[in-house]
Amino acid sequence: MKIKIKGMGIYLPKQVVTGEEIDKIIGKKIGWTSNYVGVKERRYANNEETVSIMGKNAILEALKDASMSLEDIDVICYAGASVEQIIPSTACLIQRHLGLGDSGISCFDINSTCLSFLSALDNLSYVIESGRYKNVVIVTSEKASAAINTKEPESFALFGDGAVAMIIGKASENEGARIINAMHRTYGDGADLCSIPAGGSKIPPNVSSVTRESEDQFKFHMNGKKLLKLSFQKIPKFLEDLLEKSNLTLKDIDMVCPHQASTSAMRLIRKKLNIPEEKFMVIIEKMGNMIAASIPMAFYIAVKEGKVKRGNKVLLMGTSAGLSIGGVILEY
Amino acid sequence: MKIKIKGMGIYLPKQVVTGEEIDKIIGKKIGWTSNYVGVKERRYANNEETVSIMGKNAILEALKDASMSLEDIDVICYAGASVEQIIPSTACLIQRHLGLGDSGISCFDINSTCLSFLSALDNLSYVIESGRYKNVVIVTSEKASAAINTKEPESFALFGDGAVAMIIGKASENEGARIINAMHRTYGDGADLCSIPAGGSKIPPNVSSVTRESEDQFKFHMNGKKLLKLSFQKIPKFLEDLLEKSNLTLKDIDMVCPHQASTSAMRLIRKKLNIPEEKFMVIIEKMGNMIAASIPMAFYIAVKEGKVKRGNKVLLMGTSAGLSIGGVILEY
Repeated sequence: MKIKIKGMGIYLPKQVVTGEEIDKIIGKKIGWTSNYVGVKERRYANNEETVSIMGKNAILEALKDASMSLEDIDVICYAGASVEQIIPSTACLIQRHLGLGDSGISCFDINSTCLSFLSALDNLSYVIESGRYKNVVIVTSEKASAAINTKEPESFALFGDGAVAMIIGKASENEGARIINAMHRTYGDGADLCSIPAGGSKIPPNVSSVTRESEDQFKFHMNGKKLLKLSFQKIPKFLEDLLEKSNLTLKDIDMVCPHQASTSAMRLIRKKLNIPEEKFMVIIEKMGNMIAASIPMAFYIAVKEGKVKRGNKVLLMGTSAGLSIGGVILEY
Repeated sequence: MKIKIKGMGIYLPKQVVTGEEIDKIIGKKIGWTSNYVGVKERRYANNEETVSIMGKNAILEALKDASMSLEDIDVICYAGASVEQIIPSTACLIQRHLGLGDSGISCFDINSTCLSFLSALDNLSYVIESGRYKNVVIVTSEKASAAINTKEPESFALFGDGAVAMIIGKASENEGARIINAMHRTYGDGADLCSIPAGGSKIPPNVSSVTRESEDQFKFHMNGKKLLKLSFQKIPKFLEDLLEKSNLTLKDIDMVCPHQASTSAMRLIRKKLNIPEEKFMVIIEKMGNMIAASIPMAFYIAVKEGKVKRGNKVLLMGTSAGLSIGGVILEY
């Protein structure tokens, strides 16, 4: 499909939190977070830097990047796991911050946790291809710091906050930009390996459900070892099928922008898949795992650093709670 | 687009709650809920009837209706506002309940509160049209009872629980089934008129944020009067544009299946739009407002009661928190 990324923008919260500061919070020896977890820095959003405000800022940057104005937007899709409030959908709140609250621009949310951005890109590319919308904004704004759990140091030390927005539209006839192929597979057997068990309709928050003893279930839980094991079982075949469907081999891919799940998991999976280090964007050391913002942020940085140029073939790929595996191969 | 609803199924919780029972809970004179609010009965899901279990049951019914088996499903999209837990997405939990946890079937959620079903139908119809997926399950399972607020009797008395699943695929050449047109507009200026302000990343649930005094902000709030005023301003033009885009007039529409927002709002809007009573499905008296399940439930009942037949033109339309307005015109 002749789909083009017309512009990109990001927002990074002001507060930088170092590995040493994390070590102190979770009571680890100084150096543990930076060296063992491999995340030296991450950003934490403050109370003013809500998901919708960060999202708005990223969209304004993306519009600048695309030389577009607010009037050019047809849809705002919030694609992330850190919804700002339970009702309404986060895209509506972002629309209002942009001063578009009387515009009628269509707003809705897509959620597949860490793969939300890819799910939105994948599904909405067909809508754009049809001509229904000209310019779709996919905005992923994540505030992992709102739900991480000091009782699970390994995941607590991983996460960071931030936002990425992309403006997607049709490529013109003489442009090569396109989505070559996309795939998304879910293995619900792994649903408990990465979860926030409460806070939804099963265990809604109220004074009876939220106590010192139970508070923990409203926070993030991850069984890193079992997640890695399941990912190891499923990812190689996933990539093989995606490449085959695309009539491509790994050699044809100029850059892989993976989900920044964890430093060690990324290294192990890169080796398992035989992807050379220089073709594999790693931004986790300075950014942490930014939930669904990780993949588009890795892509954004790859482009800004000149590692991905127009005409390059890029594989965006990752896993998410679910367990899901998602991949999009595009020509930028 | 040649899109066909191949099968439909529902699940209704066992517990019927009468208007009189609601009157007692909220301290109103017996008869207030049934007569003033106009909802004589609604279902409340119990602890075992989670959103994912209700969704699973509705899907099994829909498969039977379509004479299909589990292996025929390519995608499960949960389209609703009552996510079961914050992570992972609800579709993954439904997939596991169906015994498909190792199948790889793609699972993700779409949320535009009361219009979630329409947003999923609208956006995924393009993906189906492309041939990417053969059979997509859209499942809307809602547990409004988890978040309604006794301090706001007017909205408390309105809501009910339940689930609807639809299997959507391409119509064959000799079938008339199609989606004629769809539209979705959002006015974020109305974002505060219908909300659950807390529980997301802005005010995450913990022992400090959830107290007797603050608990209320984790529950549902609605300013019915202002919502109706904004809806009155925006809906007539919305419908005019949708019909015009479709080269249709209201006379061409055989049945309108509206969101069951509230008895009085539905009556006022029906009159404002000059829709005859017999062409306007009202199920709120026995079902309440079922959030995003209202529109597909009204459609399901219309079909089961013989009010909508294959070949009929149907308008699915409603409003949602946001404020959004959505409409899909289809030939069944």
